[in-house]
Parts: sequence; structure tokens; C-alpha cells
Amino acid sequence: MPRFRMAVEYDGTPYVGWQKQKNGHSVQSALENAILSLTKETVVVKGAGRTDSGVHARGQVVHVDLTRSWQPHRLRDALNAYLGMAREKVAIVSVQVVDDTFDARFSAVRRYYLYRIISRAGPLALDAKRAWWVTKDLDHEVMHAAAQTLVGKHDFTTFRSVHCQAKNPVRTLDILDVTRSGDLIEIRATAQSFLHNQIRSLAGTLKLAGEGRMTPADVRAALDARDRKACGPVAPPEGLYFMRVDYPGDPVEP
Amino acid sequence: MPRFRMAVEYDGTPYVGWQKQKNGHSVQSALENAILSLTKETVVVKGAGRTDSGVHARGQVVHVDLTRSWQPHRLRDALNAYLGMAREKVAIVSVQVVDDTFDARFSAVRRYYLYRIISRAGPLALDAKRAWWVTKDLDHEVMHAAAQTLVGKHDFTTFRSVHCQAKNPVRTLDILDVTRSGDLIEIRATAQSFLHNQIRSLAGTLKLAGEGRMTPADVRAALDARDRKACGPVAPPEGLYFMRVDYPGDPVEP
Repeated sequence: MPRFRMAVEYDGTPYVGWQKQKNGHSVQSALENAILSLTKETVVVKGAGRTDSGVHARGQVVHVDLTRSWQPHRLRDALNAYLGMAREKVAIVSVQVVDDTFDARFSAVRRYYLYRIISRAGPLALDAKRAWWVTKDLDHEVMHAAAQTLVGKHDFTTFRSVHCQAKNPVRTLDILDVTRSGDLIEIRATAQSFLHNQIRSLAGTLKLAGEGRMTPADVRAALDARDRKACGPVAPPEGLYFMRVDYPGDPVEP
Repeated sequence: MPRFRMAVEYDGTPYVGWQKQKNGHSVQSALENAILSLTKETVVVKGAGRTDSGVHARGQVVHVDLTRSWQPHRLRDALNAYLGMAREKVAIVSVQVVDDTFDARFSAVRRYYLYRIISRAGPLALDAKRAWWVTKDLDHEVMHAAAQTLVGKHDFTTFRSVHCQAKNPVRTLDILDVTRSGDLIEIRATAQSFLHNQIRSLAGTLKLAGEGRMTPADVRAALDARDRKACGPVAPPEGLYFMRVDYPGDPVEP
């Protein structure tokens, strides 16, 4: 059976998250339903990352095995047509054929996330549910300095959900950059893999640094505490975007 | 009576446009209803630009006269609370007191618009109703070259709606820039004032240039024709954003 790799964009607002659950509609179900409509096959679509309810994706990557050898662009267009008819907030950006050693989750060598904060007095109209609205002034330079104390290989117990199922809390954070453009503050995080709620935990803690309630040294001490109680309030899901995943042999992007 | 100037952001999708109309709910009505709820005053809110249905704003500017001398930040927060309760997609970003010679429409010295095109095969999930989805490849450098033939003081009869009520079709286009970042093409237009549908007419024509169906010289010839029939299909409203308005004495932004 041919295996297909797809890049998927979604507005996470109406979904219970990436993964199928009994309590509501998931992005995974939306894709599996579209495939069932098109091919009459009941399949499991595997994703590179399990985003939570309300978390968005610009470039989630999935793989699926289908019976027929679809031309990639025809599969993309046909599935997008079914997703559109079902009024899903999910779009397939690209499709390619991969060999059957490719696994969206386990082959990934780098994952890229973006967390968007809009810091202003007035509420969000155009960015409602697309960013974290923070009314306090944030010093993004202090946030960036605090972020740099977290880059590298560490035990991230402080910054993971108590529900995180990973056996090992050690991860290597390659990049954690904080930049500002007007009232938009963007936190960009890349690593081979992340723990559950890791980026939202980091964003919530960096926000406290931006308010002046924690120094960069305090943030580093929170990491070193390896204690969930040292984490700031977890940032809300609507600011988080799963942007991209790299795999071995992918063309290098600028 | 004190006069207030406000910067307003809105998602234009659910509205019939800026201006009050009999056939549906407008942004102007949303603001006037919020003021009525707060102050019990029936007022007319005047805007710098009459955006069409589906057109968005990051920085529409309005003015209104109220009986009471509100502290600007309290007026902003109170009106935003009423807008939120009414589930409007409208937010007041800032409020300032101005003298009664200030007129949001007639005092404006420069208006800034952005038109967003996303050029890719897959449909838009996160940017649905927030950009024009174009499946064809567009050459943004040709679009920019074509745009430069339109900058300056011209009779823009070709690029205005047949319903445009302006007596004089001559306008001075200060900037018409086309830039690209990934699959996002942005057209930025600034002028003291624009004709009805001018930017969407320009965007629709520049898109033909981007597809290779018009050369920059063809676009200039369309301008010189002063004939509405020489215009490309008008671009849809969802790509257009009213970004900002400048007035005499405003602090200069970078």
C-alpha cells in the first residue's frame, strides 16, 4: 500500500484537539472522515504532534496508507473538497508519496512551534481565538533573556503537564526566541520533540518575566527546581501554532 | 460636548460594511448601539472610510461627540465591555479626546490599506475569510512593477466602482507596493483618499499581471484608458484591511 505524507493546516478552535476522543470532534477524525468519504477505506491517520483543543496548525504533518496509488495533487484536491463539504476548518496544504519507513511522529527530527501574544488594552477582534490577549505591558527583551536560560538539554519537569505520559522529562530545546512587532509578541520554539504542555508552560512563565514578576534568574531557578509548582500559569491554547516538522532528507528551507 | 477619536479594529465578515444600511447589521451600528447602552445617547459615529461588507479593519478611525467628559481609557473599556456582551467582532483599540475641529473623514491626510493574497494549491483554513485564496502561481515582482506604473496623480476611472459617488476620479496614489513572504503576497496602498472599490480593483488587475495575463505596460494602458471595462475582475473583500489613518499633528510612526 502506498504511504502518503501530508502537511495539514487547521483552525483548532472547534476541535477537541488533534487526537480522536469520545467527547467531541477531532482534527484526526475530520481527516479520517474525508478519507472514508473519498476512498471508502477506514484508516488511521497518524500525526507528528498531538495538539490540544484550541491549538492551531500551519504545518502539522501526518501519514496514512491507502490502497490506491493516488497522484498526490489529486488526493490533495479530492480530500480538500470533502473537508470543505463537511465545513471542517482543516486544509491539506501538500501531499507527497513516501516510503513505508516514513512515520510522521517517529521520523521527525525537528518540530517548530509559534506562540502569539498580543499585548494591548483593547480586546482582540481580528485575532480573537488566534492569539493570547494580555492587557499588561510586556518587556519582550526580558522575556527573551529569560528564554535563553532554558535553551539546551534539560529536565523540563517544571514545564510539563502533570498528565504528560513521556517516560523521560529530558528534552533538548534548540531555539526559544522572543521577538516583538508592534503589540504582537512571538515566541518561537524548536526541538526534536516536546513534552505535553511544554510550550504553553514556557509561554506562561515567560509572560511573568515580561511583566517583571520573575527575573531571568528566577525562570532558570524554576527549571532547576524540576517541580511543576515552580511553573507560571499555563498559557491558553489559542496562542499556539504547530508550524512545521522536518524529516531526514527534506530540502533545507531558508 | 467633548469629541472622542477612536481607533477601531473589526472582522468585517459578519457585517454589511462600515455604514448603516437597512439590509443588515453594520460596524457603525455596532458602535452606536454600544454607546447607546453605555450613555443612553443616540449618536452618529463618523468613520474615516466606508469599508464594504467583508472588508476588515486594523485601524479604522472614528469620531463621536458625547455629553460626558469620559476619561479615554474608561470609555474604551466600557464600550469594549458592551461590544463583547453583544458578541460584536469589533474592538476599540484606543480613545483620545480631540478638539471639535477634528473630523475622522475630512481631517485625514493619509489612509493605509493592506490587501492579502495567499497563493497556493490548498484552500485556506486559518486564513479563510481573511485573505484572497488564489491557486495560480503569481509573480510578485511583475505585480510590483505593474503597480509602480500606477503610483502618482491620475484619473482612476478604470479602477473605481460604477457606483462610486466621488465627483472627481483623480487621486494621488502615494505608495502601491507588492511584497511576498512564502505563499503570502501583500499589497500595501497609501493615499490621502481612495475611490470606491479602488484598492480591490487595483488588486484584481495586479493579480492578472502576476499570472502573466497582463504586462506592466498593459496595466498602465488600462489606467490611461479611463474605462471601467479595462479593469480586471475586482478582488474579493476578504483580503482587504483598513490599517491606519494619519491626521495633522499625529506623532510620526517608524
